[in-house]
Amino acid sequence: MKSKYAVGLDFGTLSVRALLVDIYSGEEVSTCTFDYPHGVMERNTPAGTWALQDPQDYLDGLREVIRGVTQASGVSAEEIVGIGIDVTATTMIAVDEQGNPLCMSDEFRDEPQAYIKLWKHHGAEAEAEQILKLAQKRQEDWLKYYGGVVSSEWMLPKILETLHYAPQVYEKARFMEVTDWLVMRLTGQEVRAACGAGYKLFYRHGQGYPSREFLRELDPRLENLVEEKLNAPLLNVGDRAGELIPEMADLLGLLPGTPVAAGFIDAHASVLAAGITSPGTMMIIVGTSSCHLLLSEKEIPVPGVGGLVYNGILPGYYGYEAGQSCVGDHFRWFTHNCVPAEYHREAEEKGLDLHQLLTEKLHGYRAGDSGLLALDWFNGVRTPLADFDLNGLILGMNLMTKPEEIYLALIEATAYGTRWILEQFEETGVHIDNIVLSGGIPAKNRMLVQVYSDVCHREIRLCGTSNASGYGAALVGISAASPEYTGYTSIAEITGKLGKKGEEVFTPDPQNAKVYDGLYREYRKLTEYFGNGQNDVMKYLNTLRKER
Amino acid sequence: MKSKYAVGLDFGTLSVRALLVDIYSGEEVSTCTFDYPHGVMERNTPAGTWALQDPQDYLDGLREVIRGVTQASGVSAEEIVGIGIDVTATTMIAVDEQGNPLCMSDEFRDEPQAYIKLWKHHGAEAEAEQILKLAQKRQEDWLKYYGGVVSSEWMLPKILETLHYAPQVYEKARFMEVTDWLVMRLTGQEVRAACGAGYKLFYRHGQGYPSREFLRELDPRLENLVEEKLNAPLLNVGDRAGELIPEMADLLGLLPGTPVAAGFIDAHASVLAAGITSPGTMMIIVGTSSCHLLLSEKEIPVPGVGGLVYNGILPGYYGYEAGQSCVGDHFRWFTHNCVPAEYHREAEEKGLDLHQLLTEKLHGYRAGDSGLLALDWFNGVRTPLADFDLNGLILGMNLMTKPEEIYLALIEATAYGTRWILEQFEETGVHIDNIVLSGGIPAKNRMLVQVYSDVCHREIRLCGTSNASGYGAALVGISAASPEYTGYTSIAEITGKLGKKGEEVFTPDPQNAKVYDGLYREYRKLTEYFGNGQNDVMKYLNTLRKER
Repeated sequence: MKSKYAVGLDFGTLSVRALLVDIYSGEEVSTCTFDYPHGVMERNTPAGTWALQDPQDYLDGLREVIRGVTQASGVSAEEIVGIGIDVTATTMIAVDEQGNPLCMSDEFRDEPQAYIKLWKHHGAEAEAEQILKLAQKRQEDWLKYYGGVVSSEWMLPKILETLHYAPQVYEKARFMEVTDWLVMRLTGQEVRAACGAGYKLFYRHGQGYPSREFLRELDPRLENLVEEKLNAPLLNVGDRAGELIPEMADLLGLLPGTPVAAGFIDAHASVLAAGITSPGTMMIIVGTSSCHLLLSEKEIPVPGVGGLVYNGILPGYYGYEAGQSCVGDHFRWFTHNCVPAEYHREAEEKGLDLHQLLTEKLHGYRAGDSGLLALDWFNGVRTPLADFDLNGLILGMNLMTKPEEIYLALIEATAYGTRWILEQFEETGVHIDNIVLSGGIPAKNRMLVQVYSDVCHREIRLCGTSNASGYGAALVGISAASPEYTGYTSIAEITGKLGKKGEEVFTPDPQNAKVYDGLYREYRKLTEYFGNGQNDVMKYLNTLRKER
Repeated sequence: MKSKYAVGLDFGTLSVRALLVDIYSGEEVSTCTFDYPHGVMERNTPAGTWALQDPQDYLDGLREVIRGVTQASGVSAEEIVGIGIDVTATTMIAVDEQGNPLCMSDEFRDEPQAYIKLWKHHGAEAEAEQILKLAQKRQEDWLKYYGGVVSSEWMLPKILETLHYAPQVYEKARFMEVTDWLVMRLTGQEVRAACGAGYKLFYRHGQGYPSREFLRELDPRLENLVEEKLNAPLLNVGDRAGELIPEMADLLGLLPGTPVAAGFIDAHASVLAAGITSPGTMMIIVGTSSCHLLLSEKEIPVPGVGGLVYNGILPGYYGYEAGQSCVGDHFRWFTHNCVPAEYHREAEEKGLDLHQLLTEKLHGYRAGDSGLLALDWFNGVRTPLADFDLNGLILGMNLMTKPEEIYLALIEATAYGTRWILEQFEETGVHIDNIVLSGGIPAKNRMLVQVYSDVCHREIRLCGTSNASGYGAALVGISAASPEYTGYTSIAEITGKLGKKGEEVFTPDPQNAKVYDGLYREYRKLTEYFGNGQNDVMKYLNTLRKER
């Protein structure tokens, strides 16, 4: 059989990467990355930190990386069976009826609210609070499936923010996840991914979006939001959204009619990349923050689990999404702020980065050796407390305490946080058999993976590709093609056959695991004390803290 | 009146300093410092960290610094009215009947137990524990005046250690505080300072040393300890111990018959230097650790107050001694371990040390701005908990937290610790009107002094001399001289007239003081939680911690 290829497009925070994948061997034939020229346009405002983007960057990136991978590989347009796209979420764009970004019109060129609001745009804190309060008051059933919280990163707060600060933009806009918008640009069809609608816009399978009544009470002007500004066919993961229109085919150097899959969220795409097709295996993406994804046949709300969506990850299953707010961010804070000059010198002499040096110094350390315990709350707590008014803690220091020991305590704290999430699932009746780690940190830090295995008493497998999201996007790209052409009949089959399970497996060290049991109990005692209202000192300090 | 002079000798941990003082103006005419050639001989042993010294270093230092100050100043031997000596305590020496150090004999030259055991010699942890347990069992009345604890730094544990590890040294030894031994070398008279006996050997005014029964039960061989190895006339602060013998006069270039005062403890001498002659003013010596000294007419045991001795600081008063285990040590730990490379570069460029740079960066910070709270427990807690099995804590960090903010939190923590001690005194009925700070840190860090004033709601005065201990020793040197010769009739009069009260006074900033009230309440909530058995996580971590 002649090789055929799919393109996976992974739109991240600062750049887009294309991955060209052999649809039979899974070989990653070629990659190409493009940095957004305008990056992230950030600004501190009284309403929160803005993080805006220019849609032209996405369009330019699309062209550059697709042309990049085809040219580098020598693969011809005829050999490409389909395209899949994932984007961070909610990364929202306001467009007109034809899908043209409002920020590109003369009318709204100078209106910030008309630009892309990146996932980490935090201008809608007040709106998130308003939505939460109303949902609580009205006892909206959907709230429990979102861990009882509303994040300002989600879509409805971002829409409400636009209504509040730029009603003229609201009036003219349709609001889309950028992943859906890119699909629309490629195919000329407006469809929406069930994944984004479910995780980011409270869409419930069988029930739809939040009700007209709810939206009207939120703001009378929102009453027709769904009908006027959101409604479009909802597609599942792996569905074909449409085919490449001639104008875009020309731009990208591909064939008109090339199938394009429905959009996807980047984190969720990586579950497919690891070949997970059934309940019981949790994928944890360990990056600046961590995201925990799990398939299940059950729909049981788990405390602080930020999303529970039918068909959200793989058709036919409920997809759970939990999160830890601060993982890599926390280690980077430490290396930026707390590592002394002589360590910098030593790292330079040895040709190591600081993380590598600290890890080297921890060689031979066993559980408990540092005498330290930390709470991984530097950015608040997503799952299970869903409380972002909490902060970090480190205790146990004496005058012999070394920087690498604090670094280890922070790593251990994130492992305890992961175990806490696993236990929340188990206690709620959602079983977890094993764990796959992906993301930037596990690839670079094997010590962290071993600590996670020891703390969680679990076998941990590393995902077999370092381009997990892009690879997952390529798999849905294959799924978008006709079965007659590829031989595959479903996204589950493709995932099962081409998913990269990974060879590297970590098993718990029994002695460390035992000591970590005791330390985890102490961690939980502290989470109870500082997290559940017994001692609200962290919230109190936040009322005093000066924002600088 | 022709000027006359006294010599104050301040024997510290690593060096001795002489101070030549004009007995009418208080002018510090000349100083001279001598580093002990053998420094501190330290060794880690299973029984604890040894810190030994060579008595010859003290004798050499005596000669060098006295000759140094007289030569530099041109003051003649005839003009010197008296000599005062202070030494760290318990810094213990084992001598024969003539006062010759046993370590200088052929028999014990190679026996570590025969050398000077410096105050921070910690070889007697087990012995301190044994003494404490027995005193508790027998409900010894004296224990409560020592905060209910026995420190391994005190004299009886050090003696018992000698008995345990070198019974042959014990058999031949008399045991002395080095301050008393130096007085004996100068005068040929064996006397003991009430200060050392009271603070370091459980001597109670009107009752004497611990009883024969207690000592026998501790070890039958100790039954006659007091009579055989300790007994000597007890002298008060400012008493004359004797006169310079010709042999020593010749060595030092002074006149035979020059009066020598009874020995003194270095910290306690500094109270006199600040001109404190009545109850209500607390002297706090802020150094690597902090020592709090107070005169009172009342004898009321205060929790964790490590000594309460009649005539211990100034005749006619009870002298209280409290302590914080970790102050400067704590800031040094921070600058050594937690300050990033670019701060080192910036400090170098600006010609500042790290403490100065951090302080500069904190310019404009107000109470509460950092959002942080810490426990100053990196070295355990002396007053009031008397628990050394506790460790440090920092909480409230987020990803914006800066190194200087943690530094400030550590300073604030030591201020809260000080306020806690003040409140212990007040609650027990011992009133404190105002505070004098001395020691190395306040002299260099005005920000710290202001924080202490704000946190404690107290006016704080800085001691008027940076040589506080040596100046206090000079004052007792004046007191040792005949009133007919000096015109002074008591140490209280001398202290009142020549004490250096200092001009620099800090008053609380009302707004900061109010915010610190709230933060102090939170600090105390944490001390209750982690310090009183509600959550023993620190002790648990210490059982796991690997000593490296």
